[in-house]
Amino acid sequence: MKKASLIVANAEKSADLLYATGFRAPDPYIYFAMGAKRGMILSELEYDRGLQECRDGIHVFRYEDFIRRGKRGMGDILRVLAKSLKAGSFLVPSDFPLGLADFLRHHGIEVKSSKHEFFPEREFKSEREIDCLREAQRITGLGMRRAENILRESDISPSGVLYWNGAPLTSEILRAEINIELIRHDAFAESTIAAGGVQGAEPHNEGSGELYTGAPIVIDIFPKIIATGYHGDMTRTFVKGEAPEIVRRAYQAVHNTRERCKTMVRAGAIPAEIHRFAAEFLAQQGFPTGRRANGKSYGFFHGLGHGLGLEVHEAPRMNLRNPVPFKGGEVVTVEPGVYDSAWGGVRLEDVVAVRGDCAECLTDYPDQLELD
Amino acid sequence: MKKASLIVANAEKSADLLYATGFRAPDPYIYFAMGAKRGMILSELEYDRGLQECRDGIHVFRYEDFIRRGKRGMGDILRVLAKSLKAGSFLVPSDFPLGLADFLRHHGIEVKSSKHEFFPEREFKSEREIDCLREAQRITGLGMRRAENILRESDISPSGVLYWNGAPLTSEILRAEINIELIRHDAFAESTIAAGGVQGAEPHNEGSGELYTGAPIVIDIFPKIIATGYHGDMTRTFVKGEAPEIVRRAYQAVHNTRERCKTMVRAGAIPAEIHRFAAEFLAQQGFPTGRRANGKSYGFFHGLGHGLGLEVHEAPRMNLRNPVPFKGGEVVTVEPGVYDSAWGGVRLEDVVAVRGDCAECLTDYPDQLELD
Repeated sequence: MKKASLIVANAEKSADLLYATGFRAPDPYIYFAMGAKRGMILSELEYDRGLQECRDGIHVFRYEDFIRRGKRGMGDILRVLAKSLKAGSFLVPSDFPLGLADFLRHHGIEVKSSKHEFFPEREFKSEREIDCLREAQRITGLGMRRAENILRESDISPSGVLYWNGAPLTSEILRAEINIELIRHDAFAESTIAAGGVQGAEPHNEGSGELYTGAPIVIDIFPKIIATGYHGDMTRTFVKGEAPEIVRRAYQAVHNTRERCKTMVRAGAIPAEIHRFAAEFLAQQGFPTGRRANGKSYGFFHGLGHGLGLEVHEAPRMNLRNPVPFKGGEVVTVEPGVYDSAWGGVRLEDVVAVRGDCAECLTDYPDQLELD
Repeated sequence: MKKASLIVANAEKSADLLYATGFRAPDPYIYFAMGAKRGMILSELEYDRGLQECRDGIHVFRYEDFIRRGKRGMGDILRVLAKSLKAGSFLVPSDFPLGLADFLRHHGIEVKSSKHEFFPEREFKSEREIDCLREAQRITGLGMRRAENILRESDISPSGVLYWNGAPLTSEILRAEINIELIRHDAFAESTIAAGGVQGAEPHNEGSGELYTGAPIVIDIFPKIIATGYHGDMTRTFVKGEAPEIVRRAYQAVHNTRERCKTMVRAGAIPAEIHRFAAEFLAQQGFPTGRRANGKSYGFFHGLGHGLGLEVHEAPRMNLRNPVPFKGGEVVTVEPGVYDSAWGGVRLEDVVAVRGDCAECLTDYPDQLELD
């Protein structure tokens, strides 16, 4: 029985599909491969553009080339595809839609979900991809620069609220200005974090309301670069004016930890061990991890980092549950942080590419806690 | 055997999950329902925010509440969930990930993919949702206004290229300025179309390069409003300066068709019939649909419209393949267009809500082809 690979997805949501074809479209389409033969099947609407924009070596078809007896459902089209390929079995990504798989199985076609990543090679970036990621970091830095400049330009009102352009500076304004700067460089960030004070103690809190002097402001920017589909990811923490002693100590501990961990990332190193080191090193510096009686966590309670590429979060994870040594070519974030609902959070995040015996840092943005 | 409903998805990608919980997070999480009991299971990282932001009546749990013997895989957690609910069967959306479904089945848990929409009620909007969509259209209109103003402010160089702010006006600049205006209102548009001349003959071509006088410029804006998750969708076609006769005729035909079709959308009307009418009416006005010998399509070769809500494209479709009469409460786009690789495209798109015996237009933006 002949086997084919198959993806049915929206390339704006499926990094695997974008990796396979290079073709972005707002609606789902079909990608298949059998031996050296690769193809995609598009709606009439996308056909001309698909021909122009897809990767070399991919044959482009229209849905109507696979419609028999007026049956236009995605499952029907896939049955005709299987027949024309003489394939009895499809290997699909693990996030392949269940409804479609069950339909094909019901009609006697085997559908096997990939046990591992569909394109394991996505974890190991080519030089071209590393260039894309370096460029993504550069653009992300323009967004960070915009945020830093706005904080520098701000005045401090008697109540401690920051004022910018004659109005109170809020997380919403700061986030919008970051995102606008990114759009000017054709990059999109949907969930930029600009969280001040105790909001920063929740690592995914995007931040809301007025920003104050003397409290840490966590800025985490992870845009997609539209032209390439690759992502940047960068976090800095700032205080406008003077930082409280606890924040200064936390910043120093996190900074030390990030720098030490970056030197540990290399071919052969084990992600879980680097994460474990980070947690222990932070504890040694006075920032242990735990949970208060009220249920709130404090310390360092997220993974040290994650792969970065066509997805913001992809393989390999750098946390306690990943014992697989780096091989070289992985691109990962290194982002220790410490959080406490009593005073907020500090996180510092760089991106590194795993080279043979070292990591190349793709982030070129300074670290400075206190802004005048 | 007791049955539960289950979604495992990323709420930034799954409209069903966002509809169920109201909680956005950058990573996948679990939603379940059994009888009146509804819950979501989040990572430690999201727990506090989830408690604050989710819909009333949803219980919030942590993954670690469902970890037994250190098994932290999503499938393992779902097995513990099934046991604690005493559920032997999960009903899931048809886009539920196959790998996870096969894992659960392998462990004796039935997984049934929903044959229809998981939340069929999503098709029929509440007054609150219609308010969200009207507001989304208002914000989308601000983006369109920005584009129109830039075209009005532009000068025409001797070669016919438009100049704005002292530089040639490109699709890229126009798109960026539209998207920036949207971001100022907390709305994101990833694939805004600003396609001039013959690029506009491909309905999903986003446009690139310099824009010219005397050629149609198709602007199609479909942002997500971040605060609510609902989308706007609006298309206008402009010519800077004088429009060629063929474009003027196409514009009039498309405008007539959109207006006639809007009056046909009402409870009891059949989407396929409205689409068929649109195609025939365009042909009567001199714009039939077909394909040239070179394989290029011309005329009106996409659906007349689609449902709009938490997804840009959702049920009900308004095309030849939807014979199901409107019931009332649906919100759909009405967007006839005509395209020709010889001169470009014209598309005009409004959004209407199906009321009893009429459609309420949610779009309040003028139609004007030629801009001085």
